[in-house]
Amino acid sequence: MSDWRTYVRKVEPYVPGEQPKEKNVIKLNTNENPYPPSPRVAEALMEFDYDELRRYPDPESTILLDALAETYHVDKNQIFVGVGSDDVLAMSFMTFFNSPKPIIFPDITYSFYDVWADEFRIPYETKPLKEDFRIDVDDYLVENGGIVLPNPNAPTGLAEGLEVYERIIRSNPDSVVIIDEAYVDFGAESVFPLIEKYDNLLVVQTFSKSRCMAGSRIGYAFGNPELIRCLNDVKYSFNSYTMDRITQKLGTAMLMDPEYFEHTVQSIIETREWTKQELQKLGFTFGDSKANFIFAKHESVYAEEIFKALKEAKIYVRYFKKPRIDNYLRISIGTRKEMETLVLFLQEYLSR
Amino acid sequence: MSDWRTYVRKVEPYVPGEQPKEKNVIKLNTNENPYPPSPRVAEALMEFDYDELRRYPDPESTILLDALAETYHVDKNQIFVGVGSDDVLAMSFMTFFNSPKPIIFPDITYSFYDVWADEFRIPYETKPLKEDFRIDVDDYLVENGGIVLPNPNAPTGLAEGLEVYERIIRSNPDSVVIIDEAYVDFGAESVFPLIEKYDNLLVVQTFSKSRCMAGSRIGYAFGNPELIRCLNDVKYSFNSYTMDRITQKLGTAMLMDPEYFEHTVQSIIETREWTKQELQKLGFTFGDSKANFIFAKHESVYAEEIFKALKEAKIYVRYFKKPRIDNYLRISIGTRKEMETLVLFLQEYLSR
Repeated sequence: MSDWRTYVRKVEPYVPGEQPKEKNVIKLNTNENPYPPSPRVAEALMEFDYDELRRYPDPESTILLDALAETYHVDKNQIFVGVGSDDVLAMSFMTFFNSPKPIIFPDITYSFYDVWADEFRIPYETKPLKEDFRIDVDDYLVENGGIVLPNPNAPTGLAEGLEVYERIIRSNPDSVVIIDEAYVDFGAESVFPLIEKYDNLLVVQTFSKSRCMAGSRIGYAFGNPELIRCLNDVKYSFNSYTMDRITQKLGTAMLMDPEYFEHTVQSIIETREWTKQELQKLGFTFGDSKANFIFAKHESVYAEEIFKALKEAKIYVRYFKKPRIDNYLRISIGTRKEMETLVLFLQEYLSR
Repeated sequence: MSDWRTYVRKVEPYVPGEQPKEKNVIKLNTNENPYPPSPRVAEALMEFDYDELRRYPDPESTILLDALAETYHVDKNQIFVGVGSDDVLAMSFMTFFNSPKPIIFPDITYSFYDVWADEFRIPYETKPLKEDFRIDVDDYLVENGGIVLPNPNAPTGLAEGLEVYERIIRSNPDSVVIIDEAYVDFGAESVFPLIEKYDNLLVVQTFSKSRCMAGSRIGYAFGNPELIRCLNDVKYSFNSYTMDRITQKLGTAMLMDPEYFEHTVQSIIETREWTKQELQKLGFTFGDSKANFIFAKHESVYAEEIFKALKEAKIYVRYFKKPRIDNYLRISIGTRKEMETLVLFLQEYLSR
């Protein structure tokens, strides 16, 4: 029977990490920042006049673009903003990945890439990471319809050297190469300066991790002005006004406090390194994460078992029941106190 | 030469109404509400704890869905929410309009419909409105890949009787029929109760007009649970977290004050009717608008001339340089005082 169901777009949606509604949980499952946004954000919130809400926001998000341009020393026509980096990535896939050739990305990576490819009916091929979860550069020097690579990769936390990304970008002038830098501020080197050199490079970042504002939904991308214009054309053909008035102001306020940003990022890095030491003592192994999470497996206990035990103790981490990584836990870095609680629990649990 | 530009999605973006940055203008060009949101929204804003922003929002926007379900007496699985009704409509086009047959909509209507069709490569046909800007029902009783119709229509402001929409919905069981009710609260009859009767009906509404919150970006849709599930699957394959934490709370607060909503809507309707009388005295003609704008032409002066004169006087209205409507002005209904200023200016200008 033919009815309206025949022509519905059928998709298998991305499943985000659990957002438990109960209080008093230690939430280390979605790579959120354990610190609140800068006090400047609280001030901007207090100062916001609710009467403004009756008017549409500035469709160009000028204040936020200006603040990003100043922060990163680029022109504002080299920046695109969206409703979180997922929105920026979705728009980018739609804009740049329209070749009949497959786009390529690693087999172990952000699990939204294949969802977007399916949603937009983009052919894709995944390239297996090596045994040590590093990428094999040669995999990305083949014909393709586009490339997307995270720096550092998720959920592994591993970053390649700048020269690796540059070689891939340089070797693919016919494709747009998207480098997804959601976690870059926690210790990897950003490829962002390369936008001045390569017109096929788009670098995507977010306020959700290092800038403590996952709840506000702000993502952004850097690229040469032509690339950004293409992206804006597609965005303006989708929704003129995506960034609401309050979010534009709060995001701008966050950028006005670089000291706070640097200080909180540094704390997270220190806590990560401390946690690595403690986990190692407990028999965990992991790569050298440059992100705000550790991707670890235990020498003798199955990840899924540990995951369940932690959840019962109201400590949420992320477990992916997927080939090659189903014996790993992705543990976000919380406050030092939260990580101490985690470590104490694991000490006790593993010594049983 | 083949390079990355070859496979960029090329689109002709929608151009939103001007958002002048200067102050002291009378802004009657984007159908915004002249009144602020309910004081409940101001309270919710004051109470918001900025520390929450470090966490992702509830991806399901549960509090907002619950408040909408209570307001409209439907189940929450019959509701979809998005970043303004443009986001809801874009997602709906992407979800439901995938037939090789063309979708259909009027030639004079919301000028985003053809933009979305182009963006998503959906074939479409426009059906000319009759001389009096009414739709010809027979136009919508033909084979099609989907139908989108506004109730009331924009920029004409004209609403059809419920039986007209119902006939179209009933006659097209193989297509999803989207009724875009951005302006319905200002005097048209909503088709929304028909979602219980027809599983191919999606009714889209917004907080941007009657609910005074264009700056917050909240749109929603009603439909049977199966339709809503399809829409959610596509949305979750695009961006898990679209509604930020503050917006979810402020939208919920707005729904908690139905008296304020009814009172402000009533004021706008009264001001509209007063403005109609005054414009008529000045030689304007227009249909019986059921929206928060009047679509008017003058008996002797060209619309574009009046538009320019108004703009010089810092009164912004909307003018579309398009076939059939290039001698009309779309004038949003502001406060009584704003409309008095408009009328006074026109009295003087037209008597020159």
